Amino acid sequence: MNAVATELLQQAEKLSADVVRPIPGSRKIHVEGSRPDIRVPMREIALARTPTLFGGEENAALAVYDCTGPYTDETATIDLSTGLAPLRARWIEERGDTEALHGLTSEFGRAREHDAKLAHIRFGNRVLPRRAIGGANVTQMHYARKGIVTPEMEFIAIRENQRIESIREAHLLRQHPGENFGASIQKIITPEFVRDEVARGRAIIPNNINHPESEPMIIGRNFLTKVNANIGNSAVSSGIAEEVEKLVWSMRWGADTVMDLSTGKHIHETREWIIRNSPVPIGTVPIYQALEKVDGRAEELNWEIFRDTLIEQAEQGVDYFTIHAGVLLRYVPLTAGRVTGIVSRGGSIMAKWCLAHHKENFLYTHFEDICEIMKAYDVAFSLGDGLRPGSIADANDAAQFGELETLGELTKIAWKHDVQTMIEGPGHVPMHMIKENMDKQLAECGEAPFYTLGPLTTDIAPGYDHITSAIGAAMIGWFGTAMLCYVTPKEHLGLPNKQDVREGLMAYKIAAHAADLAKGHPGAQARDNAMSKARFEFRWEDQFNLGLDPERAREYHDETLPKDAHKSAHFCSMCGPHFCSMKITQDVRDYAKEHPESLIDIEKGMAEKSAEFRALGAEVYRKA
Amino acid sequence: MNAVATELLQQAEKLSADVVRPIPGSRKIHVEGSRPDIRVPMREIALARTPTLFGGEENAALAVYDCTGPYTDETATIDLSTGLAPLRARWIEERGDTEALHGLTSEFGRAREHDAKLAHIRFGNRVLPRRAIGGANVTQMHYARKGIVTPEMEFIAIRENQRIESIREAHLLRQHPGENFGASIQKIITPEFVRDEVARGRAIIPNNINHPESEPMIIGRNFLTKVNANIGNSAVSSGIAEEVEKLVWSMRWGADTVMDLSTGKHIHETREWIIRNSPVPIGTVPIYQALEKVDGRAEELNWEIFRDTLIEQAEQGVDYFTIHAGVLLRYVPLTAGRVTGIVSRGGSIMAKWCLAHHKENFLYTHFEDICEIMKAYDVAFSLGDGLRPGSIADANDAAQFGELETLGELTKIAWKHDVQTMIEGPGHVPMHMIKENMDKQLAECGEAPFYTLGPLTTDIAPGYDHITSAIGAAMIGWFGTAMLCYVTPKEHLGLPNKQDVREGLMAYKIAAHAADLAKGHPGAQARDNAMSKARFEFRWEDQFNLGLDPERAREYHDETLPKDAHKSAHFCSMCGPHFCSMKITQDVRDYAKEHPESLIDIEKGMAEKSAEFRALGAEVYRKA
Repeated sequence: MNAVATELLQQAEKLSADVVRPIPGSRKIHVEGSRPDIRVPMREIALARTPTLFGGEENAALAVYDCTGPYTDETATIDLSTGLAPLRARWIEERGDTEALHGLTSEFGRAREHDAKLAHIRFGNRVLPRRAIGGANVTQMHYARKGIVTPEMEFIAIRENQRIESIREAHLLRQHPGENFGASIQKIITPEFVRDEVARGRAIIPNNINHPESEPMIIGRNFLTKVNANIGNSAVSSGIAEEVEKLVWSMRWGADTVMDLSTGKHIHETREWIIRNSPVPIGTVPIYQALEKVDGRAEELNWEIFRDTLIEQAEQGVDYFTIHAGVLLRYVPLTAGRVTGIVSRGGSIMAKWCLAHHKENFLYTHFEDICEIMKAYDVAFSLGDGLRPGSIADANDAAQFGELETLGELTKIAWKHDVQTMIEGPGHVPMHMIKENMDKQLAECGEAPFYTLGPLTTDIAPGYDHITSAIGAAMIGWFGTAMLCYVTPKEHLGLPNKQDVREGLMAYKIAAHAADLAKGHPGAQARDNAMSKARFEFRWEDQFNLGLDPERAREYHDETLPKDAHKSAHFCSMCGPHFCSMKITQDVRDYAKEHPESLIDIEKGMAEKSAEFRALGAEVYRKA
Repeated sequence: MNAVATELLQQAEKLSADVVRPIPGSRKIHVEGSRPDIRVPMREIALARTPTLFGGEENAALAVYDCTGPYTDETATIDLSTGLAPLRARWIEERGDTEALHGLTSEFGRAREHDAKLAHIRFGNRVLPRRAIGGANVTQMHYARKGIVTPEMEFIAIRENQRIESIREAHLLRQHPGENFGASIQKIITPEFVRDEVARGRAIIPNNINHPESEPMIIGRNFLTKVNANIGNSAVSSGIAEEVEKLVWSMRWGADTVMDLSTGKHIHETREWIIRNSPVPIGTVPIYQALEKVDGRAEELNWEIFRDTLIEQAEQGVDYFTIHAGVLLRYVPLTAGRVTGIVSRGGSIMAKWCLAHHKENFLYTHFEDICEIMKAYDVAFSLGDGLRPGSIADANDAAQFGELETLGELTKIAWKHDVQTMIEGPGHVPMHMIKENMDKQLAECGEAPFYTLGPLTTDIAPGYDHITSAIGAAMIGWFGTAMLCYVTPKEHLGLPNKQDVREGLMAYKIAAHAADLAKGHPGAQARDNAMSKARFEFRWEDQFNLGLDPERAREYHDETLPKDAHKSAHFCSMCGPHFCSMKITQDVRDYAKEHPESLIDIEKGMAEKSAEFRALGAEVYRKA
């Protein structure tokens, strides 16, 4: 082990308590698959019995999707300097198509590794990187197309089902038929369905062979809608321990993948710490680091530097790369008349390069070379939308849609190499122009997964862009977007702190879930139903625990009614003890049960019914 | 003047500084109409000149809609114990169809007025209430149908246009054509159009003749989408001064109307303080107070008590009443199978009454009697959706839609009396079932304005229901809802405090504006365009000031880059000084301008262009 600085180790050791503590009211469970090393994590929320007044029945525990890895597992030991257990290592080795290298093969990676000045921040427990053996293709898409159901695919099938097959309670299964706009929503996700979707390119499983710590997950329109959180330091802020803490914090609030957008120094070392401790796939934008290697001068970028950066990051275990290969020279002048020009960092770097050299984007001309790298490590493409609109005014313009067509062309090339591919999308788009984005993406890109930033539905609310964009994200998720890249309240203003990350993720978990409900995803409504039943029955603790943020729900409740007794009170703070519509509803229900004829002939015997009801006490709250 | 308690007066005097201070970067202006007493308030946001680097042009000040009355006017004197100036008093008197009464005519109102024990909390500057002379109809709808354009209508036309006719800058006028689903969106709002919409019942102007302090505003699908904030104390919380402060605070954040949902004691006195100090229309749910008059026993409610309550509140100046006249006896048992039964307070009160008496809802049987009261004061109906769904599971069910049909029937009756009417809507609805609500409302209720609570698009996020519902609100606003009732983060958990009110309103101002953009409301995009231009040009102060919440935008910016110099920095905190896509875009723009041929033939002369660009410096940031 290297001589990691005591300070960094200390920081790592005391990863804030609030980042790793278990989530209230629930416990980590693992559902075993066809072999004992397929152990799919879920979070099981225990529910109280229904009060006798409302029927007294048991309420089965509800399993929900869980991205938090071992960090919320009370039985797990966390040591950031060791990294997580490599749960997929055996599956990768078993396939026999990869080999451990003697060391990093990128020039940059080797230079960093041998730089003694970096010892104090270097992750000490790095294992040797792996790579495909002599030209082999090790992508999940390649296996899928050969008809192989990998352990990763089985893991995902179990994970996506969230134990729906075990739900027997009628109220939990009650669900509105959705509107899915031509998606292929299944009743139960089978491993074979996962394989088929990956084979067709309609879904991707981002899991680099050098990130065996990751828990397999899938991004595709026929699966649960996913959310991504961006972290990363910049010249202005942040350190390594802080970034790892942001990673864990992001997963706690439901990030399905995390993008490390660091641009400061020590990118390489920070990334290593992040990947080694991440159970979720990690994405990056390699051009950011490549640009740093040429001191920020875009025109000095070239294929060799970029290629070395790809290999450097692939050997660390990055699961997907944003590649702005669709920013073609001919599209660049189309942005000149925009209100906000090119707002994507990667897009503007490539635009500048294209103009400086008056040559076609080297990411485009070297696209097949990139594919060769991707398939040797199973890194997925996230084809970047470098020309996405940065304002309502620029939405759906020629530059944006021109690039999208090129991304479609590149998708076909990636698929020729069996390289998994998703497509990035806008941006800023008013509501009525969102569906056109989805429809065009599906048509141009052969149903490859769409991965959108928002979109923001208005420009006028800096400080609240998690909301302006959650509106667009929910809609485009419904229309078919597979993963939503979160936006925090700090968007356009500054770097998000921990609270901003939480706010952004909550807004996006809402958007993703609202999308799943609208698409009619199987079992999506079970959690809503469980929540609503708990609400109706005044099971306050269950309401908190079933929510996306149990801690905040409890805190808000306690602000008005702090006493513990109020947690079991059959009223709530909004209306007080004498004035509760839920209680009156229970009277209606009792009445309908006792007088089934009221459902048939309400005209009959009005006077006598009235007398009966009054005789029963006509009390808002009757003792059982 | 009565002997108002010193304590209350002191509280009123020190209405918190943050509630009344001017909004940063802008000033109150008034646009005069055809007569000098038509002075329409707007808020004018001053903008800085574009930096020379980007062109150096002037940026015209932007006028935005302003609900804050005199509270943000530096030149105004605020004295809550006096109340606001009655700006409409002359218009009302001029019409000659109303008279000042000798005193309150409701029994309850008189009793309160003569109760010496209430002197310490009574508003001291009450004027005599007015009422229509002998059966006259004094509603704006009545005037509209007679072809009269009232000063209120002209005021509204000027207000809705937000001075769009004075905008000459091309970038501000740039706007995407909207999708309005059959609405009649105008290019310019004329007083005649306002009259016509009110006459047809497609819009309402809630302005009771006893609330002459109110600034006229309109609620209708062909006008700007409005938002409502609920305030009100309950048995558990709040006092008079606190409620008035909440009123002012709500308007500060953009509440177009405010509903006073108080249920505690001193409802009557609190309401008087609120109305006398409110420039926005005030709505109430009279059944809440009626219920208190019978000590919370719903079955003891009767028409006489309710009638007296309506008159009591109409003579105070309430501008619209939520009336749950659509909760028919035959619909009540339809809710028995719901997951969350009846969640509307008013709905459950009336359901209980119907069951207890086994009689039809007295609000329904007395509906024409209610119309007689409404038209004598010009109180508008907000026909309550007492059977709205309280969970995703219960959305769009037979009870909800049965009631909606009855509300349509009642709308026609109200219109027969020329009584202005809007319709309340859900509630909890998954995204794909929202449009059905709007379509059915338009069809059943003859295009009377729809006024919805959210809808919440999922049940699983207590603590974040301002977001779950802003998604639904934006969508239903786009589809045609005229006013959105806000939901705060405390929904389902507790009573909102001031910060919650702000969060709820910001989410709803976003939803309303996103809806206006999507509908293609004239000029709606001007503020987005101004913001985006300021963003592109690094005019930080302008970005803050153009936002819905200038204070928060500035605060968030300053968290990362606190120095004043950074406010004029041509970079932002996200990427640091060396890495800014906006700057690179400016290079692209300069290039396209200098090389117009690049837009035509990008293949030509690649090598020489490249050399030229490099020769220019290829600098990210060039001194002008």
